[in-house]
Amino acid sequence: MNNIIIGQSGGPTRVINASLVGVVKEAKKNKKIGKILGMRHGITGLFNDDLVDLRQISDEKLDLIANTPGSALGSCRHKPTSEDCEKIFEAFSKHEIKYWFYIGGNDSAETVYLVSEIAKKKGYDFKAFHIPKTIDNDLCVTDHCPGYASAAKYVAECFLGNDLDNRALKGVKIDIVMGRNAGWLTAASALARFKEDAGPHLIYLPEHPKSLDTIVEEIDDVYAGLGRCVVAVSEGIGAGSFSKETDSHGNMQLSGSGALGDMITEYVKAHSRHAKLRIRTDTLGYAQRSFPAVVSKVDFDEAYMVGKVGLDFAVKGKNSGSVYIERVSNNPYKSEAKLTDLKNVARVTKNMPAEFIDKEGNWVTEAFLDYARPIVGEISGVGVL
Amino acid sequence: MNNIIIGQSGGPTRVINASLVGVVKEAKKNKKIGKILGMRHGITGLFNDDLVDLRQISDEKLDLIANTPGSALGSCRHKPTSEDCEKIFEAFSKHEIKYWFYIGGNDSAETVYLVSEIAKKKGYDFKAFHIPKTIDNDLCVTDHCPGYASAAKYVAECFLGNDLDNRALKGVKIDIVMGRNAGWLTAASALARFKEDAGPHLIYLPEHPKSLDTIVEEIDDVYAGLGRCVVAVSEGIGAGSFSKETDSHGNMQLSGSGALGDMITEYVKAHSRHAKLRIRTDTLGYAQRSFPAVVSKVDFDEAYMVGKVGLDFAVKGKNSGSVYIERVSNNPYKSEAKLTDLKNVARVTKNMPAEFIDKEGNWVTEAFLDYARPIVGEISGVGVL
Repeated sequence: MNNIIIGQSGGPTRVINASLVGVVKEAKKNKKIGKILGMRHGITGLFNDDLVDLRQISDEKLDLIANTPGSALGSCRHKPTSEDCEKIFEAFSKHEIKYWFYIGGNDSAETVYLVSEIAKKKGYDFKAFHIPKTIDNDLCVTDHCPGYASAAKYVAECFLGNDLDNRALKGVKIDIVMGRNAGWLTAASALARFKEDAGPHLIYLPEHPKSLDTIVEEIDDVYAGLGRCVVAVSEGIGAGSFSKETDSHGNMQLSGSGALGDMITEYVKAHSRHAKLRIRTDTLGYAQRSFPAVVSKVDFDEAYMVGKVGLDFAVKGKNSGSVYIERVSNNPYKSEAKLTDLKNVARVTKNMPAEFIDKEGNWVTEAFLDYARPIVGEISGVGVL
Repeated sequence: MNNIIIGQSGGPTRVINASLVGVVKEAKKNKKIGKILGMRHGITGLFNDDLVDLRQISDEKLDLIANTPGSALGSCRHKPTSEDCEKIFEAFSKHEIKYWFYIGGNDSAETVYLVSEIAKKKGYDFKAFHIPKTIDNDLCVTDHCPGYASAAKYVAECFLGNDLDNRALKGVKIDIVMGRNAGWLTAASALARFKEDAGPHLIYLPEHPKSLDTIVEEIDDVYAGLGRCVVAVSEGIGAGSFSKETDSHGNMQLSGSGALGDMITEYVKAHSRHAKLRIRTDTLGYAQRSFPAVVSKVDFDEAYMVGKVGLDFAVKGKNSGSVYIERVSNNPYKSEAKLTDLKNVARVTKNMPAEFIDKEGNWVTEAFLDYARPIVGEISGVGVL
């Protein structure tokens, strides 16, 4: 029998459990599959044999889990050493694992790549599949990443609410949006603009860095015209000067702190040409990746699909690889799951292309909106006087 | 004919426009009502005759506005001087205003009270009605405030997502919740607890202040047991040392800054008995009062009711006053709108009563949950492994 094991790694998302359940339900239906095991907290669950028998979980409970944010198996941010790899192989041998599914971002793809390369050299016989997820939307090859569209929807709803609030009590409102390297999630704030004078009025992305003085000038210009200004700032633009911690993959901690937002607020206050500017800043928090009440239907369905199709690829005898999404058509929206080499996805990140950023470098293009709208879906309808 | 004027004041909420539309639609139906005017940005709209003819707005558009966050007429935080009062009387005389409806919190109630007292002395003939709203839920007399339950629902969904995220990547997660003086909104985080070991594990309210050292100790104890801890902290507990700005009513600016959260984070890191604690803090932002995609149905209906019944009270010849909500029964939930003297609501705030806070001072009681559940409604269902 073909035993399988599944793990989740990196930051959870709104729909990462849909991918888990996609693998599990498809595996339960397939007579060639034996044990269906889950590793608790990613590969660290292998080290102390902390595994879950997922075949025992009822379909009803699986459906509930699929629609639950967070990583139901637990997650980790552990980069395996060569010693770890040995432990992984031992665990796989002990449980006679034939297929390994690891749901995560580019760090997780790197883990899968490293482990499978060493396994190949050493003659271990298993196949490894990376199932994509990340709200950052920065994986290569794939059109977009499961998890992104739901986070994007949450961000757009935040900006819609912020714009309405800012119309009522005017001033400058800045929101710091997640996105370590790439501006994808920050760019999604543009979906909130429901009329000409609606915010966000300015969008700052790591792909088009600007000096704080330029940012203040641009805010001042919008404020001079409208008497208010709503600004989206990617946390990525503060990466240089505001990193205090690094995780084991060498990434910097940006979220879970208000420092970047507070710094920008103080700078704008000090340098604006408008006197007594009312300025408020929010750092959009972990709700971006975990808010239960907002989900994109396309995102949920695709997250399930990459899990399900990953299992299918394995059973059909495909080589180890990373599952990705191809956009087949945009109107009506249609997508398919395909497989690419792990090395094409491991570690590398995909920034927003130049054609998605307007030439002023402070907003997005129609091309980006065409890209984002079908996957994010409808934003709340509103009316103003 | 009886002309009416309506204004909105103070912080917007998710449902404050339902109150506006409640007044307007009821007024449109009443043959005794003449002009239906709206003041832009509260009483400041009177000073420069910036008024809107609300009778011209179609019912279809009004329905859309009712379901839109923010204050559709615009808001202000202006406390009227005696000179301002003269200008208000002039404007009311010019437009032959018989009834004034002002939707706001206790500062707005104070404005209505001050203006109507001076009007009485000077013999101006109009009646003034305060229509309650505030996410802080700290108005006196009323069982609860329109705006609170939707904000509470948003906060509970945030904590639910945060707990699921924190299960996946363990550590300490702190969320700072709005609430200048009272802990009502922070307490609502308790509604997120879907099972015994779920967060929030600790809830800190201004009504039961604790030292930071005690807080660290309690976090450490939870962490020792579960390997993780989700904490709700009211921004009100930091009011003493973290105020930088005051608004014209003498209140301190607490929101729109990450300073309190970052301070607590640093303190916990420095004083925890657990080494290398992973700790993240979010300051829940303006989305608490403006997030379009989350609304409590009871809250929406009651916000509409206090506007509608306010108009009815006026037409029936009631004296100036503040509309409030009386809970008629809890199961099934039923409420009514009534009228109390303005002086009972103006300025004063209502803290959480002792019976809503557990004796450890770090969680809420069943009595509070019984109070909050029917008005907040269902929180998202989730499943965990």
